Amino acid sequence: MLTSTSQVETVTSLTQEDRALLVKWADGSTSKFHYIWLRDNCPSPESLHPNGQRILETASIPLDIRPRSVELAGNGDVEIIWANDGHTSRFSAQWLRGHDYTLPSRMKPQNPLKLWGAELSQNLPATSYGEVSTDPQALRAWLSLVETYGAALLYGAPAAPGTVLQIVELFGYVRETNYGRLFDVKSVANPNNLAYTGLALSPHTDNPYREPVPSLQLLHCLSSSVDGGESIIVDGFKVAETIRQQEPQKFELLSTIPVRFRFQDKEADLSAEAPLITLNSRGEVTAIRLNNRSIVPFDFEPDLMERYYAAYSTLARMLNDPEFQVCFKLAAGDLFIVDNQRVLHGRTGFASSGSRHLQGCYADRDGLYSRLRVLEREEEIRD
Amino acid sequence: MLTSTSQVETVTSLTQEDRALLVKWADGSTSKFHYIWLRDNCPSPESLHPNGQRILETASIPLDIRPRSVELAGNGDVEIIWANDGHTSRFSAQWLRGHDYTLPSRMKPQNPLKLWGAELSQNLPATSYGEVSTDPQALRAWLSLVETYGAALLYGAPAAPGTVLQIVELFGYVRETNYGRLFDVKSVANPNNLAYTGLALSPHTDNPYREPVPSLQLLHCLSSSVDGGESIIVDGFKVAETIRQQEPQKFELLSTIPVRFRFQDKEADLSAEAPLITLNSRGEVTAIRLNNRSIVPFDFEPDLMERYYAAYSTLARMLNDPEFQVCFKLAAGDLFIVDNQRVLHGRTGFASSGSRHLQGCYADRDGLYSRLRVLEREEEIRD
Repeated sequence: MLTSTSQVETVTSLTQEDRALLVKWADGSTSKFHYIWLRDNCPSPESLHPNGQRILETASIPLDIRPRSVELAGNGDVEIIWANDGHTSRFSAQWLRGHDYTLPSRMKPQNPLKLWGAELSQNLPATSYGEVSTDPQALRAWLSLVETYGAALLYGAPAAPGTVLQIVELFGYVRETNYGRLFDVKSVANPNNLAYTGLALSPHTDNPYREPVPSLQLLHCLSSSVDGGESIIVDGFKVAETIRQQEPQKFELLSTIPVRFRFQDKEADLSAEAPLITLNSRGEVTAIRLNNRSIVPFDFEPDLMERYYAAYSTLARMLNDPEFQVCFKLAAGDLFIVDNQRVLHGRTGFASSGSRHLQGCYADRDGLYSRLRVLEREEEIRD
Repeated sequence: MLTSTSQVETVTSLTQEDRALLVKWADGSTSKFHYIWLRDNCPSPESLHPNGQRILETASIPLDIRPRSVELAGNGDVEIIWANDGHTSRFSAQWLRGHDYTLPSRMKPQNPLKLWGAELSQNLPATSYGEVSTDPQALRAWLSLVETYGAALLYGAPAAPGTVLQIVELFGYVRETNYGRLFDVKSVANPNNLAYTGLALSPHTDNPYREPVPSLQLLHCLSSSVDGGESIIVDGFKVAETIRQQEPQKFELLSTIPVRFRFQDKEADLSAEAPLITLNSRGEVTAIRLNNRSIVPFDFEPDLMERYYAAYSTLARMLNDPEFQVCFKLAAGDLFIVDNQRVLHGRTGFASSGSRHLQGCYADRDGLYSRLRVLEREEEIRD
């Protein structure tokens, strides 16, 4: 049976239960809205500011609030007058349907993430700087790649110092740290960080010793004439889910036992502690935090020590397994961005002859996602 | 019995167990160090860079690594030659004792947080700008207040626009957002945020719709000649622990059920979801996230709805309970800083006659804690 939008969003009858209102729709289904929820989400100007922010203090609503009257208005709105203070709340049927929390069939936002392994090499998430910097739709598409894959490449930007900051300005804000607004990644004498050597770096997230960690990292190539120095990216969520499936006990350790990271130099002393895999309250993986260089000596209960090393080694070996890795070599002007709480990055070692000079900077996801949502909104309006 | 430092840090004998080394100390105690842990933390230049970063890939160590030989060197160091590759690891007794993970008596870092309620009004954590801006020890003491209480006041800074940014530069870095590097908090026409009205604001954390949330917020007063407009701060950790104790079932809901926050205007569209109380993997409260203005309509299982409202109201009422609140009125030049993941802030409403102009900005804890640790280090050296 086809159901038209107007049927789905048309109320045919209202029934007052003790604590909730039953709304029957023209398509035959019924939804339940608790009175306290309705009062809390009242769109009257005394309750909700025109800017969309709630003025009403939720805690001021009696938990046992009840209607004095409920009626279906002529235009199909649901109108409630409240028993406690006579306030009137009026809801459009469309709004109620859109915020229905009782229909089992209601649309839940889909998880936009796509987990990946080495096969992503066949179809690198990449766009050209020329498009992204001039065409909002291309920018929207590129930011969308970052949301979906946690990583994206940008080809052919100017190979000029500072370009990485201009690229951040396309979508967000730089996260300044003790490393500066941007930092130069090249071999130096007396490096305070192994990034500033020609050593290989196994896949890692940046700055796990910092809370909050920078949620985005960009690396932009100014020059590259060395042998080696290839970039490696790994989807940490994919690796975590693989461990969860194959070795649940190791996953348990990695997602519950806090590990401390530290960075110290003359100017800074940073330290933070968290499990290598962070789960949210639903048990979903929300962050990976791992940098073998900056873990301080484990300080666990002795009985845990060997089991944890076994779990840690499994994780680290999977991150180093080509099956999970995507490798590419940045040419001058190229850039990649990673979600630093999902995608680990690393590099192969490089020789001291020739030059390899990247500029990096940190930024945050909130700005990127906000820009992406606004661009999507604008495209919808144009469509 | 008094035990001298030298006894505590002197090894008298070594015993090789199957998977770990037993170290007996001159004070009679025994510690156990697993071989894999010892190899992982080897301080040799091939394993550990002079900058303190680990070069050795932990995952490259055989999980069953064993010593070929173990001996107590003449100077009291413990020297191990490994069976697999003949590498030598040498540990000072002092280092081993400092990183001992087996002694039940070992010193664990103390939690520096002090939870507080209204009684903090008697002894506001406050310092003068004159001291903090010129004396590193005063700055160290002020930053220490922020760490301990999650909030501190600074009196008598210049009442000049932009001063708040200079204050951030004393210890860290501004977190730039869609609101700018700094934002003006005063009544305006068509406010995109209720902060920019004269309305009272109940205690809240800023920007719960952003991930990562700014972990520090500063508010600096440029002028204040209105009736009202008093500042309110509340220790969210204290309130959370009180709920945990008094109403564990409500605490359970508040710390596990994710709630979505959203902010939209012409330029931005921000959205994030998390429980109002975040716990780490040990069950400790690590963040509070609450702003009644920007919660989107709850979208829970219907059976949960009323129970959640009851828990939410308990939390919100406690935050509005004077027993938990500290109130003060900023004069021109004064500033307060809060840990935005611990301490909620709000204000009483104010009249439209007269002026009230604050400038705010966001920053992050990592920079503040790093600066604090470096200042502490420098004081220790001077002592």
